[in-house]
Amino acid sequence: MIYLDNAATTLKKPDSVYDAVIDCMKNYGANPGRGSHKLAMKASRKIYETRENIAKLFNIDNPMNIIFTSGATESLNLAIKGIVKEGDHIITTSMEHNSVIRPIKALEKYGVLNTIVSCEEDGTLDVKKLEKEIKENTKLIVTTHASNVCGTLIDIKKVSEIAKKNNIFYLVDASQTAGVYDIDVKSFNVDMIACAGHKSLFGPQGIGILYIKEGLKLNSIKEGGTGSSSLELYQPDVFPDKYESGTPNTQAIAGLNEGVKFILETSTKNIREKEEELCDYMLNRLKEIKDIKIYGIMDSKKRAPVIAINIGDLDSGEISFLLDSEYDIATRPGIHCSPLAHKTIGSLKQGAVRFSIGYFNAKEEIDITIDALKSIVESM
Amino acid sequence: MIYLDNAATTLKKPDSVYDAVIDCMKNYGANPGRGSHKLAMKASRKIYETRENIAKLFNIDNPMNIIFTSGATESLNLAIKGIVKEGDHIITTSMEHNSVIRPIKALEKYGVLNTIVSCEEDGTLDVKKLEKEIKENTKLIVTTHASNVCGTLIDIKKVSEIAKKNNIFYLVDASQTAGVYDIDVKSFNVDMIACAGHKSLFGPQGIGILYIKEGLKLNSIKEGGTGSSSLELYQPDVFPDKYESGTPNTQAIAGLNEGVKFILETSTKNIREKEEELCDYMLNRLKEIKDIKIYGIMDSKKRAPVIAINIGDLDSGEISFLLDSEYDIATRPGIHCSPLAHKTIGSLKQGAVRFSIGYFNAKEEIDITIDALKSIVESM
Repeated sequence: MIYLDNAATTLKKPDSVYDAVIDCMKNYGANPGRGSHKLAMKASRKIYETRENIAKLFNIDNPMNIIFTSGATESLNLAIKGIVKEGDHIITTSMEHNSVIRPIKALEKYGVLNTIVSCEEDGTLDVKKLEKEIKENTKLIVTTHASNVCGTLIDIKKVSEIAKKNNIFYLVDASQTAGVYDIDVKSFNVDMIACAGHKSLFGPQGIGILYIKEGLKLNSIKEGGTGSSSLELYQPDVFPDKYESGTPNTQAIAGLNEGVKFILETSTKNIREKEEELCDYMLNRLKEIKDIKIYGIMDSKKRAPVIAINIGDLDSGEISFLLDSEYDIATRPGIHCSPLAHKTIGSLKQGAVRFSIGYFNAKEEIDITIDALKSIVESM
Repeated sequence: MIYLDNAATTLKKPDSVYDAVIDCMKNYGANPGRGSHKLAMKASRKIYETRENIAKLFNIDNPMNIIFTSGATESLNLAIKGIVKEGDHIITTSMEHNSVIRPIKALEKYGVLNTIVSCEEDGTLDVKKLEKEIKENTKLIVTTHASNVCGTLIDIKKVSEIAKKNNIFYLVDASQTAGVYDIDVKSFNVDMIACAGHKSLFGPQGIGILYIKEGLKLNSIKEGGTGSSSLELYQPDVFPDKYESGTPNTQAIAGLNEGVKFILETSTKNIREKEEELCDYMLNRLKEIKDIKIYGIMDSKKRAPVIAINIGDLDSGEISFLLDSEYDIATRPGIHCSPLAHKTIGSLKQGAVRFSIGYFNAKEEIDITIDALKSIVESM
């Protein structure tokens, strides 16, 4: 099987990830923070170690500013809903995933307003256009770091400058970039970063991260047992407990820890360079295919290796189906939970076939994929 | 190590659980419902199979009425917040975990009222007392099935009758009973059941269940990509997608599936009988200890095998610490995230040492524990 669906989730993980998950479950899968016996303590320490490694990766001073959630979706919901109140205004872009758009749309009925800035056809954001939408009640700007449809990167530093200048909070959805691109919370000067653990951070599914800048307090979106301030009937205010009610996904955190350690050891630079090389190679070879439309920017330095294409007016679902059934190549067709992004790049009706490259892919797999695409086009 | 902290999480799982988690991660850990390639489809089918097995266990007709969450805490937050609105009134009991109390208390600032009915000193609920608290605006009753502190069971059928008679929704927290006690949603006639996957259902951590009765619709508490209705900017209304935004915890669901299959094969009757036998045995042997106070009901048919004790005025944390450090016996001291329950049974100041028995415990382990307790008492 050639797996080119890494933007949905990485399938292959470093072996240490699998080992850590099973080691945790079998040998110390107690309830961290809920008891002081040896195994509960070991589980707690593992969670803290993971916070520390993520802090290293993102240049975060205080590991307690890292919140573990059930995934990027919960991270984004917490970040968005935790910060706005009735009458506030949110600005976001047309390249966002539904995990950003839907919580924002759900807030409309609570009187939270929104503006969705249209990006250009290649997925880029004109930050001046975004700046023009700032109103007196604008409380939050949310943008993705890279499109999950066509990979286009958004210039986070520029958006952050505008946010700071206007005293607005800035939340970045780094689901497609964490672990590959250099995310430095200090130089980026962002207020919150949300990402999934199971994509390019190589963790298991069911775990996500929300970084919250020191001093920023959000309302919680779920409350419960925290193993702390247990006498209190109200949710405690302390980080990270306030946002982490209930038993954590301990074995997934232990796995994520190994994923992050692998990235720290390999270096994001090496990971990124390999992915960029594969991305360039694929972009170039795709041009060999007749009637191909490649969405987004053709420069691998300005995009994540998420490649969306269409061939003539062929059905994207059909191409993806044939790649899977005839050639054992996993891709994703359709809308990718991002209808506005498809509208922006002009593929809303057709959807697109998405090839998303990961660190463990190889050049030979891309060659096989190009050959398969050529055969499919000939046969259709 | 003797593990008597099963009420926090079961540590030992059937071997098939570990195998299923790793098999999923290594062989089909794709993103279910987000792509139509073979692995994504296999992951989707595994999730559906798990819904079917849970449906069998709880006698649920439609597996799509089972929602996967990140844990009992999210299930309870969704159930409670999804059903009430400003001006509504919730009734709950003083035996609840903070995962029930804290969401209810957090709703006060949104104008949702609550009454907490005091249970008796042995943890039992006088349902007439509860009935008296019903007001015209009472929308929801929430009770635990068994106390996580002293194991006392609450008569769900009786509470359900009162709820139905008064046209009030009834939510049961079955975190301490699912997989051991017979939970039949039809004969119980409850509207919602929340539970953890990682306790007596033998699943991994990070997965929870919410059953929602056919026809009942809740507001979502998080929105995002569902892999369905992808063109829609608003959260789709379809079950279970409406409540399951984002990538699921696929490998944990695959593990939970094996836990539930183990229970179906072993039968809750056999599991319960073994736990009851161990519980009776421990309750009886504990009486040998001087100055012991055993909380809750002394009849194992009326309680889950969660045993809270104190010895004279000895510090519960100290006893638990010595059991762990000197005898390698894992228990949990303190308040167990349930301050009102401790107030009810009269142990708020001292906390209690909690021994929670699971299916994989053995009589010999209880003998060793009793001997250890005796030695500790002598030495203090």
